[in-house]
Amino acid sequence: MSAPLTDASLDQLFLKARTYNAWLPKEVTDEQLHRLYDLAKFGPTAANSSPMRVVFVKSQDAKQRLKPYLSETNVEKTMQAPVTAIVATDFAFYEHLPKLFPHADARVWFVGNEPMIQSSGTRNGSLQGAYLIMAARALGLDCGPMSGFDQAGVDAEFFAGTQVKSNFLVNIGYGDPDKNLFERLPRLDFDEAARIA
Amino acid sequence: MSAPLTDASLDQLFLKARTYNAWLPKEVTDEQLHRLYDLAKFGPTAANSSPMRVVFVKSQDAKQRLKPYLSETNVEKTMQAPVTAIVATDFAFYEHLPKLFPHADARVWFVGNEPMIQSSGTRNGSLQGAYLIMAARALGLDCGPMSGFDQAGVDAEFFAGTQVKSNFLVNIGYGDPDKNLFERLPRLDFDEAARIA
Repeated sequence: MSAPLTDASLDQLFLKARTYNAWLPKEVTDEQLHRLYDLAKFGPTAANSSPMRVVFVKSQDAKQRLKPYLSETNVEKTMQAPVTAIVATDFAFYEHLPKLFPHADARVWFVGNEPMIQSSGTRNGSLQGAYLIMAARALGLDCGPMSGFDQAGVDAEFFAGTQVKSNFLVNIGYGDPDKNLFERLPRLDFDEAARIA
Repeated sequence: MSAPLTDASLDQLFLKARTYNAWLPKEVTDEQLHRLYDLAKFGPTAANSSPMRVVFVKSQDAKQRLKPYLSETNVEKTMQAPVTAIVATDFAFYEHLPKLFPHADARVWFVGNEPMIQSSGTRNGSLQGAYLIMAARALGLDCGPMSGFDQAGVDAEFFAGTQVKSNFLVNIGYGDPDKNLFERLPRLDFDEAARIA
């Protein structure tokens, strides 16, 4: 049994974490990105299917390849961010199940069942995207997730010839609290979104 | 700028966290469930849309209402768990945008755009489900997420007359490490799932 994390850690993960729109000029190293993935990968997915794929867009060349597909309001902050993660889902994820779920033939649960491939891939790829955000915060990094981009364009540019489809983008770095940080928006109260039955 | 959490905290959230299949006989209080929601709600969603809805199934009566819709392998552990969260998505989430995103008329981005309602609701509801799992672990609780259940049946039983649709289930409590805890399954290596561009 574990105790709750410290208040400072809960602040860092949830209560004081914010979506940043500007970034301090401080590099995120390749080693940090490896550590980030190696935390996030342990979050649970159905049948351990692990459908998320990630491109960490870091070089100027790759940033320029991404740029034409960004919504206008996302361009400046994304070009400035140390890293932009393209969080994507591999809809051929089930081909890895012999490695990921070795004690049963889980691959056959999916082959040819397109609705199940779509719903399971979409759900679990998104869960993993959230694990990535939480893992980044746990490592002292800040995030700026975004949905505003041309998914088909990004898929053609970064995932041509595969079943990998982009899901959302996350700028990653050290957020600048003095620039374009909006006021915290309200959330739904417990009674608006939850109940105990 | 924040430092990484302690190794013990990273273990608790990711590296040593496990999906539990049996539960110690220790209650999860209503206060803990409120605290859990009040952490998870701060995770980021597109336009702060916050589409997740949760029923924390805790009473014996509510457990019995859930039972007929569970896959056979999920019945025993779910009946035994202190709480089972039905993580669901309200596909009428955009009706709350005047509260949640007050500085723009974001509601009109969604009304009548069924593909956008579906994709945004599904993505962001799943992100929030992952925040709920991470928040539970941050509070020292263990989780057992599950996809094996009759979604339409659960929706008719718990969400009749609404646009709320169940997404997945999460048993929540204090995991019993000595019972039905499987070996940690392998994950995809960095180079199998990610790249730095």
